[in-house]
Amino acid sequence: MREAKIVEVCPRDGFQSVERHIPAEEKIKIIGMLADSGIKKIQATSFVSPKAIAQMRDASLVMSEAIKQRPHTRFFALVPNLRGAESAVAAGAKEITTVISLSKSHNMANIRRTHEQSLEELKRIRESFPEITVGVDIATVFGCPFEGPQTVAELLRMIEAVSALGVREITLCDTIGVAYPKQVANVMREALVHFPGSSFGIHIHDTRNMGMINSLTALENGAESVQVCAAGLGGCPFAPGASGNTATEDFVYMLEKEGWETGINFEKLLEAARYIVQNIEGVFSGHQVNITTPQAGSCC
Amino acid sequence: MREAKIVEVCPRDGFQSVERHIPAEEKIKIIGMLADSGIKKIQATSFVSPKAIAQMRDASLVMSEAIKQRPHTRFFALVPNLRGAESAVAAGAKEITTVISLSKSHNMANIRRTHEQSLEELKRIRESFPEITVGVDIATVFGCPFEGPQTVAELLRMIEAVSALGVREITLCDTIGVAYPKQVANVMREALVHFPGSSFGIHIHDTRNMGMINSLTALENGAESVQVCAAGLGGCPFAPGASGNTATEDFVYMLEKEGWETGINFEKLLEAARYIVQNIEGVFSGHQVNITTPQAGSCC
Repeated sequence: MREAKIVEVCPRDGFQSVERHIPAEEKIKIIGMLADSGIKKIQATSFVSPKAIAQMRDASLVMSEAIKQRPHTRFFALVPNLRGAESAVAAGAKEITTVISLSKSHNMANIRRTHEQSLEELKRIRESFPEITVGVDIATVFGCPFEGPQTVAELLRMIEAVSALGVREITLCDTIGVAYPKQVANVMREALVHFPGSSFGIHIHDTRNMGMINSLTALENGAESVQVCAAGLGGCPFAPGASGNTATEDFVYMLEKEGWETGINFEKLLEAARYIVQNIEGVFSGHQVNITTPQAGSCC
Repeated sequence: MREAKIVEVCPRDGFQSVERHIPAEEKIKIIGMLADSGIKKIQATSFVSPKAIAQMRDASLVMSEAIKQRPHTRFFALVPNLRGAESAVAAGAKEITTVISLSKSHNMANIRRTHEQSLEELKRIRESFPEITVGVDIATVFGCPFEGPQTVAELLRMIEAVSALGVREITLCDTIGVAYPKQVANVMREALVHFPGSSFGIHIHDTRNMGMINSLTALENGAESVQVCAAGLGGCPFAPGASGNTATEDFVYMLEKEGWETGINFEKLLEAARYIVQNIEGVFSGHQVNITTPQAGSCC
């Protein structure tokens, strides 16, 4: 049986899409439920300016409490810059990821930097925290809302650049949900052929209903891990038209049927997804919570 | 480029899930929009007892008007029995399908018949209308809400039984959305190996978010056609937990990206899906309209 590594991003990508602030204790409770379902790696929060994303203003509390309450789960945080990395490490994070958009214009819209500035900041983070695992999320790999399609050649150059800074964990992100299966398979194969020593994750938005097929295609073509989001929450405020991530419960259900080992207790995961839907539904702005699996249960 | 035959079922499976009656002229308008997008085969309605499904009480008018207004589109109707077949033919239908559930208990709940009674009725329909193409939808092929999993052996026996009555067009239906890709691939291959002279379609409900991947898997494993439903409407009133069908616009978008020829104008299809969402949204009971593609458009 093949093993699929599930990375839960609801507490970051999911919660940041919720307009009304979710109390820190509620976030911590949900993180605990997700960890208790057997998910081994969870993106607990992001250390960003509260002016940019107010929903994440309690990052230090959420991060430190998550680590304290579930010491055996791998928690990591998204950081846009060195300052964020400092805060994350101060809160106890042993692992962080930063983000660079493959598209220059999306990188500027999302984090107000050129590629060179982003790589320079990544270098500073690596040098400041040599003991911390630093991963990179490459955004808009499969298409950009401003520039349209991105080339594999550009992607390989970006992977080369972050690899040169010692980064080995790279997540390829379909920020606006335009990826399709053959593209995902091709991108995964190209990345692995050129960088066999690196580990590639995948992060798919379900905008055009291809979250499930693209995520599975990535796994079948060598992705080390798949980022998913309980209850299908998520979306990028700077990517017009972007909607939620692939729902964890839907994806795990399919993986089990397809013969992949996830180490996750499906009923507990469903409980967490239901809790999210029942307790924070109604506070979304334009996003549609995918509750198909929670609604239908696991009847047969 | 491979060709994918799209069969649109929104006017039947979609509209029957809408509680408030959609006026016949509205149905006919939407059918016209779908036909004008390039979809060549459309399930226009079903000829059922108005007591069972009141939404379909205008079947004769919808069927005859559809045929009159779009003479080059293949319209067909679902009929539960000989009486329905008579009404369909009287309304001008040249093609009908009837339904038998692989699960005995679902067949009883859905059409109040044993398998033997269903096959007997199919025989009567075939004998009464030898000039009409009669197809069969086999429901609950991939799982039943009452009995759980169904076996491939049982399916092959059912295909044998309907084939013995001269039926060559068979649609395998995942009535409650429990199918998974490996199962779909296996069922398609088994059906084709044992009945190479028959044509098999697939009909998938998106309950667990596997509509896209299962429908594509069926095509890749020899399905002749795929039933989909504009705006992702649909659901079976006798299958607890069932939700909408695979959305036509999402599936066609993916097919085009994957290199399949559909003969459909995507922008016109999107227009029809948007029209459905904007004009009959809010009248659903418990179903979630999949509007991800219409919302996000075809920006890149």
